[in-house]
Amino acid sequence: MKTIGIIGAGQLGQMIGYAGKRLNLDFVFLDPSENPPAKAAGPVLKYNFDDPEGLEKLAAATDVITYEFENVSVTALEKLDKETIVYPPTEALRLAQDRLEEKTLFQTLSIPVSGFQKIDSVADLEKAGLELGYPLVLKTRRFGYDGKGQCIVNHRNDIEEAVNQLGPRALIAEQFVPFDREVSAIGSRNVSGQLSYYPLTENLHREGILRESRAPTDAGNLESIANDYLKLLLTHLNYVGVLALELFVVDNKLLANEFAPRVHNSGHWTIEGSVTSQFENHLRAILDMPLGETTVLGAPGMLNIIGAMPQDSELLRNPSVNLHEYGKEARTNRKLGHLTIVAENPASRDIQLKELEKYLTN
Amino acid sequence: MKTIGIIGAGQLGQMIGYAGKRLNLDFVFLDPSENPPAKAAGPVLKYNFDDPEGLEKLAAATDVITYEFENVSVTALEKLDKETIVYPPTEALRLAQDRLEEKTLFQTLSIPVSGFQKIDSVADLEKAGLELGYPLVLKTRRFGYDGKGQCIVNHRNDIEEAVNQLGPRALIAEQFVPFDREVSAIGSRNVSGQLSYYPLTENLHREGILRESRAPTDAGNLESIANDYLKLLLTHLNYVGVLALELFVVDNKLLANEFAPRVHNSGHWTIEGSVTSQFENHLRAILDMPLGETTVLGAPGMLNIIGAMPQDSELLRNPSVNLHEYGKEARTNRKLGHLTIVAENPASRDIQLKELEKYLTN
Repeated sequence: MKTIGIIGAGQLGQMIGYAGKRLNLDFVFLDPSENPPAKAAGPVLKYNFDDPEGLEKLAAATDVITYEFENVSVTALEKLDKETIVYPPTEALRLAQDRLEEKTLFQTLSIPVSGFQKIDSVADLEKAGLELGYPLVLKTRRFGYDGKGQCIVNHRNDIEEAVNQLGPRALIAEQFVPFDREVSAIGSRNVSGQLSYYPLTENLHREGILRESRAPTDAGNLESIANDYLKLLLTHLNYVGVLALELFVVDNKLLANEFAPRVHNSGHWTIEGSVTSQFENHLRAILDMPLGETTVLGAPGMLNIIGAMPQDSELLRNPSVNLHEYGKEARTNRKLGHLTIVAENPASRDIQLKELEKYLTN
Repeated sequence: MKTIGIIGAGQLGQMIGYAGKRLNLDFVFLDPSENPPAKAAGPVLKYNFDDPEGLEKLAAATDVITYEFENVSVTALEKLDKETIVYPPTEALRLAQDRLEEKTLFQTLSIPVSGFQKIDSVADLEKAGLELGYPLVLKTRRFGYDGKGQCIVNHRNDIEEAVNQLGPRALIAEQFVPFDREVSAIGSRNVSGQLSYYPLTENLHREGILRESRAPTDAGNLESIANDYLKLLLTHLNYVGVLALELFVVDNKLLANEFAPRVHNSGHWTIEGSVTSQFENHLRAILDMPLGETTVLGAPGMLNIIGAMPQDSELLRNPSVNLHEYGKEARTNRKLGHLTIVAENPASRDIQLKELEKYLTN
């Protein structure tokens, strides 16, 4: 029996743990929080994510280490990588942590992105405004998530305020993309190099937070194009694990937005809606097992439960609902759980999701 | 958050635990074994199943108690029932523990059964041979499982040997049923009385041990008849939880064989092959939550892994396989895990199962 170490014990770690139980895998987590969700899936070493003693203990107790979120110290991981096995590769994490590196990687691989420029000063942003046009999105290069660390610059008069608000951190300006749809492409690569892709997922964000995902999406040829991009990323990075690529659809073309070197909220529907979930395939990938089938069963849809759990009975009264409760304390804008339905067809799924949204008004 | 107590920490308890995790339920088990499978789903109190101190501790630590196998002491449960909530009802367990009581119950409810007689002596069995005809199946009334505690009596000359072999325990003689197929009907009833049925499952036994299950089965009107029988049992017993009824199909008619007051091996396919698994519906039933949908997704098939685990890589190389490993030590005729496939249609499922059987030659 193998033991997997996971840095971070949030809901993603929890669901990786649940997926691995039936494969007879054991889990140890590293997380400084009180009562993190993944404590239901294995013991949690209570240390900060970059604490050398904590990481040392995690390495000693496990066969391979992975992580469930991006804000892990690359320096700490590089050190860890000398004593044990760490997947996904730290280089992928390093690039994903910096929006400028990330966009540059997309360019290098000829994956289309919106225009962007490195911003270190008001003058840089003025220049970006002239070259890329308005509106611009100014973002911190590092540590942004769920729409945090970004603001829209509509006019050159807004430049100074925007730079003051986000600086003096390293910044990037990106062309504003008036997208038609947001989609994500989720793929896996195992140690031996086997590749696998989930069907393209359509996502709906509100206030920068993912609210809904649906698969399969009516994406025509975009799905195979997205898989080509995934393949470029996975092979170029010598990647091992699950990787999620977020894309915009504009005029039936894809523009890469960002990638996450981990299992992804937009892939939660794969638990019920696919033969093999993203969580199981992440484990199969890092343990160099053959990757499982990613066919969609029916028409799955996923709704995040944010801020407050609805009364159990309300949601559970709908017999089609697969409820996932993470065991977190309620807090504004916090992801507390999700629910998945697997409908017979997309039309029936969309009607059911609309109905279920009423319970999730937060 | 509610805590569920489960008497028995085998694979059934383990899978109930896994199903409840995402509903944010906690579990405590009672089991005297070293390293029982369910220890992966919650703490295990190491006591004999009828140990008063162990049961006392289990009651104190939990909100409701259930059990995952039939050989629990009815006396111990009746005592426990006075201090806490125990489901399924102890009376259902009492009847299921005694084949004579069980068959008599079927008769009372007008559920067809093969002929049977109570056997206390050689003379009783001679009388049974005359009245029911040969071959007869002589069984112990209590504590039989997986084909243990029974023998076939082909001729009146075999009577003495058969009685010597199984006696002096209380016995029952049953008409031998030359069945065409074996099926099981699995239903649930919650505290409020809501009823729910899974589609009829077709089962294949070898050496008295379940090897394969397939659903849905091409059962015509037998499915609604089986559900009528389930309804009679569930309502008559004021039942709460999941109940499995094993039946024979003879000349397109159903004959009840036995019922199990618990989740059942022939319902393992519901984890991937149904919107709501039998394990989740058992929890919903005993917590009086609305029962979840029991529709079949695609054409599921389940194979038990018995005696020895095949090499992971062999099975995992088939991308359609959902492997479940219970974490038990290998031993002859021991159920160590199972695998489920969800095929697009029954024909493709049957071909895949045939292929997979090769890895499970034990």
